[in-house]
Amino acid sequence: MSELHWDTEITKIEPNKIQLRGYPIDYLMGKYSYPAVVYLAIKGELPDEKVAKLMETMLVSSVDHGATPPSTLAARTVASTGAPLNAAIAAGILAINKFHGGAIENCMIYLKEVKKYAEEKGIKIEDAVKEIVKEKKEKKQKIFGFGHRVHTNDPRTKKLLEEAEKAEVAGDYIKILKETEKAMEQTLGKHLPINVDGAIAGILCELDFPHQLANAFFIMARIPGLVAHIYEEQTKMKPMRKIHPTDHGYTGPTDRHLK
Amino acid sequence: MSELHWDTEITKIEPNKIQLRGYPIDYLMGKYSYPAVVYLAIKGELPDEKVAKLMETMLVSSVDHGATPPSTLAARTVASTGAPLNAAIAAGILAINKFHGGAIENCMIYLKEVKKYAEEKGIKIEDAVKEIVKEKKEKKQKIFGFGHRVHTNDPRTKKLLEEAEKAEVAGDYIKILKETEKAMEQTLGKHLPINVDGAIAGILCELDFPHQLANAFFIMARIPGLVAHIYEEQTKMKPMRKIHPTDHGYTGPTDRHLK
Amino acid sequence: MSELHWDTEITKIEPNKIQLRGYPIDYLMGKYSYPAVVYLAIKGELPDEKVAKLMETMLVSSVDHGATPPSTLAARTVASTGAPLNAAIAAGILAINKFHGGAIENCMIYLKEVKKYAEEKGIKIEDAVKEIVKEKKEKKQKIFGFGHRVHTNDPRTKKLLEEAEKAEVAGDYIKILKETEKAMEQTLGKHLPINVDGAIAGILCELDFPHQLANAFFIMARIPGLVAHIYEEQTKMKPMRKIHPTDHGYTGPTDRHLK
Amino acid sequence: MSELHWDTEITKIEPNKIQLRGYPIDYLMGKYSYPAVVYLAIKGELPDEKVAKLMETMLVSSVDHGATPPSTLAARTVASTGAPLNAAIAAGILAINKFHGGAIENCMIYLKEVKKYAEEKGIKIEDAVKEIVKEKKEKKQKIFGFGHRVHTNDPRTKKLLEEAEKAEVAGDYIKILKETEKAMEQTLGKHLPINVDGAIAGILCELDFPHQLANAFFIMARIPGLVAHIYEEQTKMKPMRKIHPTDHGYTGPTDRHLK
Repeated sequence: MSELHWDTEITKIEPNKIQLRGYPIDYLMGKYSYPAVVYLAIKGELPDEKVAKLMETMLVSSVDHGATPPSTLAARTVASTGAPLNAAIAAGILAINKFHGGAIENCMIYLKEVKKYAEEKGIKIEDAVKEIVKEKKEKKQKIFGFGHRVHTNDPRTKKLLEEAEKAEVAGDYIKILKETEKAMEQTLGKHLPINVDGAIAGILCELDFPHQLANAFFIMARIPGLVAHIYEEQTKMKPMRKIHPTDHGYTGPTDRHLK
Repeated sequence: MSELHWDTEITKIEPNKIQLRGYPIDYLMGKYSYPAVVYLAIKGELPDEKVAKLMETMLVSSVDHGATPPSTLAARTVASTGAPLNAAIAAGILAINKFHGGAIENCMIYLKEVKKYAEEKGIKIEDAVKEIVKEKKEKKQKIFGFGHRVHTNDPRTKKLLEEAEKAEVAGDYIKILKETEKAMEQTLGKHLPINVDGAIAGILCELDFPHQLANAFFIMARIPGLVAHIYEEQTKMKPMRKIHPTDHGYTGPTDRHLK
Repeated sequence: MSELHWDTEITKIEPNKIQLRGYPIDYLMGKYSYPAVVYLAIKGELPDEKVAKLMETMLVSSVDHGATPPSTLAARTVASTGAPLNAAIAAGILAINKFHGGAIENCMIYLKEVKKYAEEKGIKIEDAVKEIVKEKKEKKQKIFGFGHRVHTNDPRTKKLLEEAEKAEVAGDYIKILKETEKAMEQTLGKHLPINVDGAIAGILCELDFPHQLANAFFIMARIPGLVAHIYEEQTKMKPMRKIHPTDHGYTGPTDRHLK
Repeated sequence: MSELHWDTEITKIEPNKIQLRGYPIDYLMGKYSYPAVVYLAIKGELPDEKVAKLMETMLVSSVDHGATPPSTLAARTVASTGAPLNAAIAAGILAINKFHGGAIENCMIYLKEVKKYAEEKGIKIEDAVKEIVKEKKEKKQKIFGFGHRVHTNDPRTKKLLEEAEKAEVAGDYIKILKETEKAMEQTLGKHLPINVDGAIAGILCELDFPHQLANAFFIMARIPGLVAHIYEEQTKMKPMRKIHPTDHGYTGPTDRHLK
């Protein structure tokens, strides 16, 4: 043991024995879902089945959002120069920041701020929301997790909030989300619906994840989408093409759930 | 439509409608597992339930392997300097290459080579394996996916091959793996068991994934592990500490499946 | 011209004519030093000869600092997995953050704060320094750019400050640096000499660079060092070796300037 | 000294003494140019003055090439999401690969192939070039370093070759470049002039750099350009804008050398 000795609480490796947070990996394999094991890796405990299912829905919701997000364009641009797969994925991940994906973290910070305020003041959630929304309007501070460039009624939001109800985790944080949507309509006079970032923020708060990890969920969820775009770029597009950020169509199948 | 117009076959985005490979994302959410949707994003079709479960087992198998892999050390080193989460993940991914994770791809190439050889020569798998193993020994070429620095009997391999049997996908490729283990024992005189990279390579071949995407599965599976290590580094370790690559212990819980 | 049309002020490209900030690149080549052109690219104007020479000294000062900085270890760790050169450089750069290299930016912010304070209060630099150092001590806020883990009398600092004098750019900011060293000795009772980050911060302030670009100078200067370490790793070290962060020696030539 | 002890030949760090390849850094500062020190860091020896000047011209030649190269677009795309400076630089570097910047390395390999062929066969350079150009045409293999999308008469090439003459390093490799231009005109019937990648490849061969480091020179040279673009994006552009890859103008000063 050298003076640089250190300890981890994540995984114990011994010959022929791999324990993640105390559970043998071969015990987890085939028995627990991947989202359950993601939860275990990060939080240190296995979730119950309902929470595991909600984690799953959350990851599925953000697998891909087409070719226009900057993470996808950065990944395609790098792939287009002949980069190996991992470098193109890394470039995509480097584009997930404050203005792209970051709304989840900012919304989580807001939700916790409101809850704390309500508790400290001993007032109702809806009143705390009204006060804070009004204050933020006056200070011209943005509330994140509401409104979308493309979607006025994001299908992912509805589904996520339904699944949170089913998983019986919908509590104060999701209430704050809904009350904020109302309060913003009253205060700003325009309807800014909860978006997918807001819904995920609400769920992550309910599941007691630290807001510092918000980006991690978006990144984990989105990697398969990045991989699909990178592989399409590598196999079907001309190297070094000029990638137009918006002028593209879709030529795959559609409406397959109806068949 | 400009002269730079292009088309994608992955995701179609319209207001309030997001279709991944033709399936509405809200139809997939709550109905299909994340690994099933990963399969869909990359291959363009939904897998059957057995294959979806096998994908799940494969992703779970590689979620983490402790603090010594270079991807983990690169991620921790970068995290230790005060980097944001996404930059530390990106650094970890940049360390997944030929010598770390790359064995999956190399093993897939080998498995396809043997199968093609057996088919072209019209000979049995076991005979093709013997010939190629012998030839590679003479040419001093390494066969990837066998043997491990730490594990002589990797618990992940056994479980993965069992699950492949259950999923009814175990065919020629997994046969080649097993025959190669035998042939190497005879030719080289030492037992180099199929390792986790080999088992994943066999499964990916059976599922007809291109070997160019082998690294993608390792990267997708490992992100949660990287996130856990980065967060531990950010919250429990001193910034800019000198990170010893091997001299560390494990202080978390153990053998929790027995309780 | 599409609705996405945008404009840049950096480089104009026409057939057979490349103009950087208005100067033909072939006019600059052979006539101006690389550091002068770095200055031009970033600030939009060519520096005078003295400033160009100071830029040069600054870049040379930070070319390398051995194998222990986390940027070097991250780059070596990634290189060791078989990564291409550019991926290893990128990993090294991702390790240049708040705690590694970031002292330059933090010191620049401090220097500007003191100067502004002195001007607003209409007091002498030395008095402003004393007040702010005292205040920061009370608030337990760190002042960056002073003290070093290894060097008590950093040879780079002395040379940089000498060259700043010669270049006739040493003004209020460098005065603040020197006064802060004195004030900290009086207030804290220990001698924390201006370090290389502090000296560079002082010079960048004198040259009127924005503090947001402080990291850029460290990164530009350090790339050749990273390249040398990556190439040594790729050509002389075993792949996937465990890289000890401190236990290494030096086997190259020494004291060559004496010969 | 642990069992992981290792040695480097690049930089020796002792308290108050930093030696790069045996030269104290404060001895180098102010005395040698940055390009000379780059040469020292990588090759282990200081160049003579003429070579140092040629290194300088080479670095200046590639500082920037406008907003269309994929490295610039990747860096801007990442910067546009609110990324820190180093992450945006890293993304830019990840885009420097086979199809962007890689021509330097491929051209170096070609130049060495021809020289070796001429020496082994005991024939003249011009005859070796003719044979190999003919052979490559038959095998439909591309020769890199000739022709440009934008420039028919690249001003950088002319200047670089002139400076190589002045530095008295122009030897067989640059002769091969010139003969190849002629031979390709005769064989292919079209004029593909030596481009900036070809000229740099020739010079790096003459200076005896390994072709594995070709990309390093392009990366080192281009960082200031990336920094300028990232800073312009961060300070003058709207976050998350859609960055058109070609439809942009230039609004800075022009033809300043004439004034």
